[in-house]
Amino acid sequence: MRIHDWPTGPYPARVRIALTEKNLDSRVEFVRVDLRKGEHKRVDFFAKNYSGTLPVLELDDGTFIAECTAITEYLDALDGTATLTGATPREKGIIHMMSKRAELELLDAISVYFHHATPGLGPDVELYQNAEWGLRQRDKALRGMHYFDAVLKGQPFIAGAAFSMADITVIGGLIFAALVKLAVPAECEALLAWYGRMRERPSVAKQLAIPAPTRAPD
Amino acid sequence: MRIHDWPTGPYPARVRIALTEKNLDSRVEFVRVDLRKGEHKRVDFFAKNYSGTLPVLELDDGTFIAECTAITEYLDALDGTATLTGATPREKGIIHMMSKRAELELLDAISVYFHHATPGLGPDVELYQNAEWGLRQRDKALRGMHYFDAVLKGQPFIAGAAFSMADITVIGGLIFAALVKLAVPAECEALLAWYGRMRERPSVAKQLAIPAPTRAPD
Ligand SMILES: N[C@@H](CCC(=O)N[C@@H](CS)C(=O)NCC(=O)O)C(=O)O
Ligand SMILES: N[C@@H](CCC(=O)N[C@@H](CS)C(=O)NCC(=O)O)C(=O)O
Repeated sequence: MRIHDWPTGPYPARVRIALTEKNLDSRVEFVRVDLRKGEHKRVDFFAKNYSGTLPVLELDDGTFIAECTAITEYLDALDGTATLTGATPREKGIIHMMSKRAELELLDAISVYFHHATPGLGPDVELYQNAEWGLRQRDKALRGMHYFDAVLKGQPFIAGAAFSMADITVIGGLIFAALVKLAVPAECEALLAWYGRMRERPSVAKQLAIPAPTRAPD
Repeated sequence: MRIHDWPTGPYPARVRIALTEKNLDSRVEFVRVDLRKGEHKRVDFFAKNYSGTLPVLELDDGTFIAECTAITEYLDALDGTATLTGATPREKGIIHMMSKRAELELLDAISVYFHHATPGLGPDVELYQNAEWGLRQRDKALRGMHYFDAVLKGQPFIAGAAFSMADITVIGGLIFAALVKLAVPAECEALLAWYGRMRERPSVAKQLAIPAPTRAPD
């Protein structure tokens, strides 16, 4: 398998965490796509993923699977024992809901803030920005942090009693928050304590060890 | 099971189609939440779904599952035979990707257009609008129709050889497009032909028979 990747991106981090959780690191090769050069907005990349985003998983038969949740579904099913996406109907439902909610209310909101209300990937890539929308999404993400804090006051993981894809999505959100210097409010104690525990998980620690992004030379 | 529902909504339609596909209609009770009165933006509803949207599935043990994809995952797993969300890793990956893409590039884009660049649910509910963003999302949805048309030139269903959750999501998109009077371009022949076939499926025909929304008396 190959993963079309951007090493420091919060979305690719989700897939890398899933790979390590599933003991699949040795089975993938990473192909770097340079976001700051806009390599993901070229015709050949759109053929791999119409939405023009990373990561994209390429199977050995040439099939491309984009979207972190879809890639995680695939990886989690490979060994016949779902540990990230739920085993029972109820687990599946709750994990998918919480992961989607973490996208809507946190990770994707921060992404919109980054691309629309900060310089984002730079003027050559960010051809349209809507700063007002971006700032609303930043505020939504801050409210989202309080929501997940409240969830974690009552249970150890985002979707309940066990680590899952939903934790990975919130981790992606907090990685992105750090990149854009959006601090988690200090009163979100349960969220911060959970993140402290998550950072000690080997799959997550490995990600956080990747050096912070540097601007590519122009 | 109970479904917190708005009978003519394109998102609830997705879950109703899934219910019929899985022969589960007789097992659910529908509870109407009046979107035009803003009943989904009240504290008691936010406790059911933090994101304040319909549909929400309520299990008999009191668990709430929001998000159409999560509800579909749950329903599809109940009988132990996934027919909508994929049986093999590859099927799961492709179906989840295509369904998410149908949200990003079509259904959710039309929803943003509706809420931001049309009167939406009316001035009492639409407290913030960003018309410029809404219009961009409308244009994105029109491009999305051309994308799905191209997909359907090469295969009978959105995710390949069989009907799946991804078809349901695109159907939701075209139901929403009709509500906001966004016509599918005539040159999207494969998309229109596919929709003609979909409209004949009993699960979809049943949905389309629901009368168009009327404005609630103020
Ligand atoms: N919905 C996608 C989003 C992926 C995404 O936004 N990835 C970032 C990299 S961290 C990206 O490609 N951004 C480039 C851009 O949006 O221009 C997923 O969940 O995989
Ligand atoms: N991401 C949600 C979106 C659901 C959604 O937007 N539902 C519409 C009803 S058709 C809604 O509740 N709209 C009210 C609003 O956004 O104010 C899902 O897939 O279930």
